Amino acid sequence: MNFSIILYILGWVLNFEAFFLLLPCSVSLIYKEKAGFAYFLVALLCGLLGFIITRKKPANNMFFAKEGFVTVSLSWIVLSLFGALPFVISKEIPSYLDALFEITSGFTTTGSSILKDVEVMSHCGLFWRSFSHWIGGMGVLVFILAVLPLTGGNNIYLVRAESPGPAVDKLVPRIRTSAMILYKIYIFMTVLLIILFLFFKMPVFDAFCIAFGTAGTGGFAVKNSNLADYSAAIRNTTTIFMILFGINFNMYYLILCKRFHQAFKMEEVKAYLIIILGAIIIVVIDIRSYFPGFFEALSHAAFQVGSIITTTGYASTDFNLWPNLSKTTLVILIFIGACAGSTGGGMKVSRVLILFKTIGKELFTVAHPRSVKKVKIDGHLIEHEVVRGVNVYMGSYIFIFALSVLLVSINEFDLVTTFTAVATTFNNVGPGLELVGPIGNFSQFSAFSKCVLIFDMLAGRLELFPILLLFTPSTWKRI
Amino acid sequence: MNFSIILYILGWVLNFEAFFLLLPCSVSLIYKEKAGFAYFLVALLCGLLGFIITRKKPANNMFFAKEGFVTVSLSWIVLSLFGALPFVISKEIPSYLDALFEITSGFTTTGSSILKDVEVMSHCGLFWRSFSHWIGGMGVLVFILAVLPLTGGNNIYLVRAESPGPAVDKLVPRIRTSAMILYKIYIFMTVLLIILFLFFKMPVFDAFCIAFGTAGTGGFAVKNSNLADYSAAIRNTTTIFMILFGINFNMYYLILCKRFHQAFKMEEVKAYLIIILGAIIIVVIDIRSYFPGFFEALSHAAFQVGSIITTTGYASTDFNLWPNLSKTTLVILIFIGACAGSTGGGMKVSRVLILFKTIGKELFTVAHPRSVKKVKIDGHLIEHEVVRGVNVYMGSYIFIFALSVLLVSINEFDLVTTFTAVATTFNNVGPGLELVGPIGNFSQFSAFSKCVLIFDMLAGRLELFPILLLFTPSTWKRI
Repeated sequence: MNFSIILYILGWVLNFEAFFLLLPCSVSLIYKEKAGFAYFLVALLCGLLGFIITRKKPANNMFFAKEGFVTVSLSWIVLSLFGALPFVISKEIPSYLDALFEITSGFTTTGSSILKDVEVMSHCGLFWRSFSHWIGGMGVLVFILAVLPLTGGNNIYLVRAESPGPAVDKLVPRIRTSAMILYKIYIFMTVLLIILFLFFKMPVFDAFCIAFGTAGTGGFAVKNSNLADYSAAIRNTTTIFMILFGINFNMYYLILCKRFHQAFKMEEVKAYLIIILGAIIIVVIDIRSYFPGFFEALSHAAFQVGSIITTTGYASTDFNLWPNLSKTTLVILIFIGACAGSTGGGMKVSRVLILFKTIGKELFTVAHPRSVKKVKIDGHLIEHEVVRGVNVYMGSYIFIFALSVLLVSINEFDLVTTFTAVATTFNNVGPGLELVGPIGNFSQFSAFSKCVLIFDMLAGRLELFPILLLFTPSTWKRI
Repeated sequence: MNFSIILYILGWVLNFEAFFLLLPCSVSLIYKEKAGFAYFLVALLCGLLGFIITRKKPANNMFFAKEGFVTVSLSWIVLSLFGALPFVISKEIPSYLDALFEITSGFTTTGSSILKDVEVMSHCGLFWRSFSHWIGGMGVLVFILAVLPLTGGNNIYLVRAESPGPAVDKLVPRIRTSAMILYKIYIFMTVLLIILFLFFKMPVFDAFCIAFGTAGTGGFAVKNSNLADYSAAIRNTTTIFMILFGINFNMYYLILCKRFHQAFKMEEVKAYLIIILGAIIIVVIDIRSYFPGFFEALSHAAFQVGSIITTTGYASTDFNLWPNLSKTTLVILIFIGACAGSTGGGMKVSRVLILFKTIGKELFTVAHPRSVKKVKIDGHLIEHEVVRGVNVYMGSYIFIFALSVLLVSINEFDLVTTFTAVATTFNNVGPGLELVGPIGNFSQFSAFSKCVLIFDMLAGRLELFPILLLFTPSTWKRI
């Protein structure tokens, strides 16, 4: 293990966090809030530590898959550990564990909150929560790579470990250029959304925060009513953009390159849209009688389906009060998640697709033992390695999920609360059902349960493997 | 597809069902019950049909994996379709769908019941329910194979399709001898259990029925209180035998051959016992205050853990009233299930073990990319085919499970009822929680939900693949 380069990259993560923290500082200047001082202090601390660590480049540039996974895991842990400090120093979230839960939920784009009342928070605090979604959505190391050349040639390992989905392609041969393209698309779409929000007369501060949460598929809101009090136009705009941010960004790149034919034939995106459509139909039929008009029911159904499958987690209404068929549908969507290569979480539609096709292949092989059938997506053969990766992912997923449910159930909350609390954090969605429903929060869990859920959020966002590697003794042996 | 041989075997299944049905007939003679006439009538019908079909041997003996899977699926469906008739004819269960639910639950050793009051049933009816567990536990085709030579050389496909677990070894080279050994062990253990029950002063009829349910890991009881009213000695005996019937029968064969060293080193059995021990410890700590003494709490904890992990499903008390940690533990055990090669259902401990080791291997490979690590169980390399089989199983499992939950939730029962109803039928356990808890039943579900749950019971017992093949168009094409 090349510890020096890992430390070096962690140093840069701190430098960037210092820079990020200056944004809530600026917000506090606008609103003349004392809490901004806490952000400035932590920015200073991060900058100082980062400066010391990155002063000299590491002698050894050796960097492989293992280093990539470990670096990404540690980066996200460091980011969260320091990102929680301003909440504690400003006394807006006095408990450090609660603050850590809140900011990990932010960076991992989960959106589960321990706050009972978000409206008493300072603007800079709310901004920091929402902005953490935006950074976490596309990935902090992808951001760093877009800005500076880090470890020489092997940055692909960092991107692979941080980007969601079973098959991350380089858009272009150079990783740095890919990272830049991704962030340019991301920024463009976010700005577009902010403009639309402002056009629909959303308050400026809300427009920025909600746009960050939508882009990163996060889910932190700035009102206790979540998104329920905004107009129908804002709700529908959010629905559309949540779904757009849940699409594989490769599609946008293909569109940019004018390869429309290829872009609109992506099987994963098709499957994703079909699942969304199916879910909306089920939910709208189920909740029709809960709303005065069909279109209002449709608007809420589409919003909630879009919010959950993209793992954003905004709520336009308290869906915990919806009938059980709708709730079950939403719980299933929690697990499916968005497309690979998007900012969304969950298992990812492409994994579901690969699993589905693998099963079809096996059934066909039993019926026709002498035939050779291969699993293909978008006309490309799915390599054995990818299928194996999906299988190992699913296995690990089930284990971590079951273990987490068991550990959190020590709290003795009802089964639906426990089950959906783990599901929603592990898939980076945000709200669950019952006690952790859209109008509930996570403050009532014990410290131990909060630790388990923090682990789940990180494991979910980094897709299990990087985090599991940290707990594998053989990772830490020097070869 | 060789339809003639499939039909021929189905004919034999009907012949054997006619023979099985004569047992409840005899019981009705002892208790002088009119209901026995219904069993006699259906026995006659099965015998007649079977006789016509099996009159001449099929010309073509070709028999491969596909034929094996399809034959086994259809056998179980035929067995259930005809096995349900006596309930309807005797008017003890007037609705055919309910009767089909009940007997499918019997043959698949599930033990979920639509009966609100079992004590009003005739003795022959109760006997038929319990005896179906006993036949279903070890498998009807395994039974037929033990008695007569069927298709020539390829019977291994029948045994593989019917026996639970990822890797069924032939005990001895000849399949028929293996089947005989399995049934001899099974009969010996069942008789031993009946003797013990009688020794502990259990009524004779109850001793037979409960022993059948324990041996087949079924779960149908003959009292409305399930097993709550029997003595502690009977309860503890049942606990021990449930756990024994959940062990891979290969171990008993190894013991018979005096290969003790090999028998007591089986990793799956060790893992199974460790899981049981761990679960008992969690539950007994959790429910300690619910019982007057520690040993009573321990006895109930051990009984319930043994009952659920072996997928038997007996209840010594209403565990739906237990605290949530215990309930969560039991729900997790529902999914794990018993050992491969036992009479129990669920995912099987060996699959969990293979998944676990595969994940460990992958983590090791990332840390040491140039090393070659293989997955081993009991010192044997696990073939790539087996790992792939486990993965495809898990994938199919998740799909069928999620789809079933969605379909059953149309009933709009609470989430815990819906979720555990599917989990408990799909894993062939029996009771779930809330409305389908130990004192509840499945009568309140809609006809559509009952159909879904019947499908789940069959799919679970036959481990998905044989049943899925029935729905694959390519299965039915003549090559």
